[in-house]
Amino acid sequence: MFTHTIKVEIQFGDCDPAGIVYYPNYFRFFDNATAAMLSAAFAMHKRNWLDHYGIAGIPMVDTGARFIKPSSFGDVVEISSEITELGRSSFGVKHSLLRDGDLAIEAHEKRVWVVRDDNGGIRSAALPDEVRKLLGAQ
Amino acid sequence: MFTHTIKVEIQFGDCDPAGIVYYPNYFRFFDNATAAMLSAAFAMHKRNWLDHYGIAGIPMVDTGARFIKPSSFGDVVEISSEITELGRSSFGVKHSLLRDGDLAIEAHEKRVWVVRDDNGGIRSAALPDEVRKLLGAQ
Amino acid sequence: MFTHTIKVEIQFGDCDPAGIVYYPNYFRFFDNATAAMLSAAFAMHKRNWLDHYGIAGIPMVDTGARFIKPSSFGDVVEISSEITELGRSSFGVKHSLLRDGDLAIEAHEKRVWVVRDDNGGIRSAALPDEVRKLLGAQ
Amino acid sequence: MFTHTIKVEIQFGDCDPAGIVYYPNYFRFFDNATAAMLSAAFAMHKRNWLDHYGIAGIPMVDTGARFIKPSSFGDVVEISSEITELGRSSFGVKHSLLRDGDLAIEAHEKRVWVVRDDNGGIRSAALPDEVRKLLGAQ
Repeated sequence: MFTHTIKVEIQFGDCDPAGIVYYPNYFRFFDNATAAMLSAAFAMHKRNWLDHYGIAGIPMVDTGARFIKPSSFGDVVEISSEITELGRSSFGVKHSLLRDGDLAIEAHEKRVWVVRDDNGGIRSAALPDEVRKLLGAQ
Repeated sequence: MFTHTIKVEIQFGDCDPAGIVYYPNYFRFFDNATAAMLSAAFAMHKRNWLDHYGIAGIPMVDTGARFIKPSSFGDVVEISSEITELGRSSFGVKHSLLRDGDLAIEAHEKRVWVVRDDNGGIRSAALPDEVRKLLGAQ
Repeated sequence: MFTHTIKVEIQFGDCDPAGIVYYPNYFRFFDNATAAMLSAAFAMHKRNWLDHYGIAGIPMVDTGARFIKPSSFGDVVEISSEITELGRSSFGVKHSLLRDGDLAIEAHEKRVWVVRDDNGGIRSAALPDEVRKLLGAQ
Repeated sequence: MFTHTIKVEIQFGDCDPAGIVYYPNYFRFFDNATAAMLSAAFAMHKRNWLDHYGIAGIPMVDTGARFIKPSSFGDVVEISSEITELGRSSFGVKHSLLRDGDLAIEAHEKRVWVVRDDNGGIRSAALPDEVRKLLGAQ
């Protein structure tokens, strides 16, 4: 299915007193990676595809990460993201973070396609066929 | 004028590889301190006073800080905040951050009282008399 | 096994343009909750138990979270943390985040007990008996 | 004196419920901009110039910012940084953040050149002549 790769340069402020990336920041990087992947798949910026598809967002319902090697200030890591699953109204993503060519973190996400409901809340909605096609196509 | 004090416990993730608080995080603490001060002055939560006064927010227009002593993981610091100035549609705040009773940081803010305009943007509005009284009173 | 509960007040800056907590921040809260739990179990501050036990830290090797309900600015959430597993040199933690008494997030962690090795790197070390007892005891 | 420009793409998680960049994050961007500027001036990565010059860091002693226009998710802003002053053991920096070519933020910093002292603390040290020359040269 659709894949996309970004590079992230680790900044001083991303790191903790142990001198390595403070792990919550990786989830920030992964969130950015998913946004970048969908923007590439849809060939438009996230600001635009929220409007284009009339959705309120793609909230996270489940995520996890396995930390194999730490990274630190100045490392330029590569995050390869891949659509792993297309449900009726949800989709899965897998992120592989590589440092110096080695797998450093493996993470997964499950997100839901949501629209505003009549009460100002949100509810899940079926993934449009166009979206399924764009995410499923290589 | 109105003053208010909060305590903040420095967390591991607030600190950088030098082992001290990463300074941008102090601005997060000061933003929380201002919100807490106004909530105390207005005797209601920020969520409520935005609605109560019909404003869109209190955006920052100018801020600065002088860093005298660093703090690190586990320190419990005290932030004393004080209204320093009440303009027509803006107000000033001074924060004094104390560690172990010593002044560690001195910061100031200038914020504007803004409402939504007809085009969905924002524009400054005069501070209501009630607000002036609540912020000016000891 | 050992359990501990903390309260966290959601701040404005913890939230994203959707008006809810930006999910990477929850991992920051959970990291703080684990530190607070161990400090309670060991009856000393994290700064002290790192030294006391001669360890370099308790790095995360695996974590994940299931997001059931969002939280937003001003919510005071409760995080109940529990030791779920004591391995030779690792331990598991489960966090339950409650909002208004309802389960909003369920998260888990696996962390390793590490010491400095001779080359300045780190290696896992067996959990001391005292630690096993303190974490396993109710 | 020395100047350097970087670009920053505003991410979803950099923004707050008002839909604009949460202002403490700008200080994170400016810290990155200063690190990038010095790395360009010294023609080496920050990790390396700390070692190369035998310093413990360049802690902030004073910073401030004037916010003229907000930025939001997806904006690509430009930060132009400039050395404004070279003291005996300190230096000044000015940052101009531009969005769509317009000045959106003006910020300044004063940082100190510090080395480890004999007690494991830090003390200010004179800027080496080589550094003065590299920062002063256009």
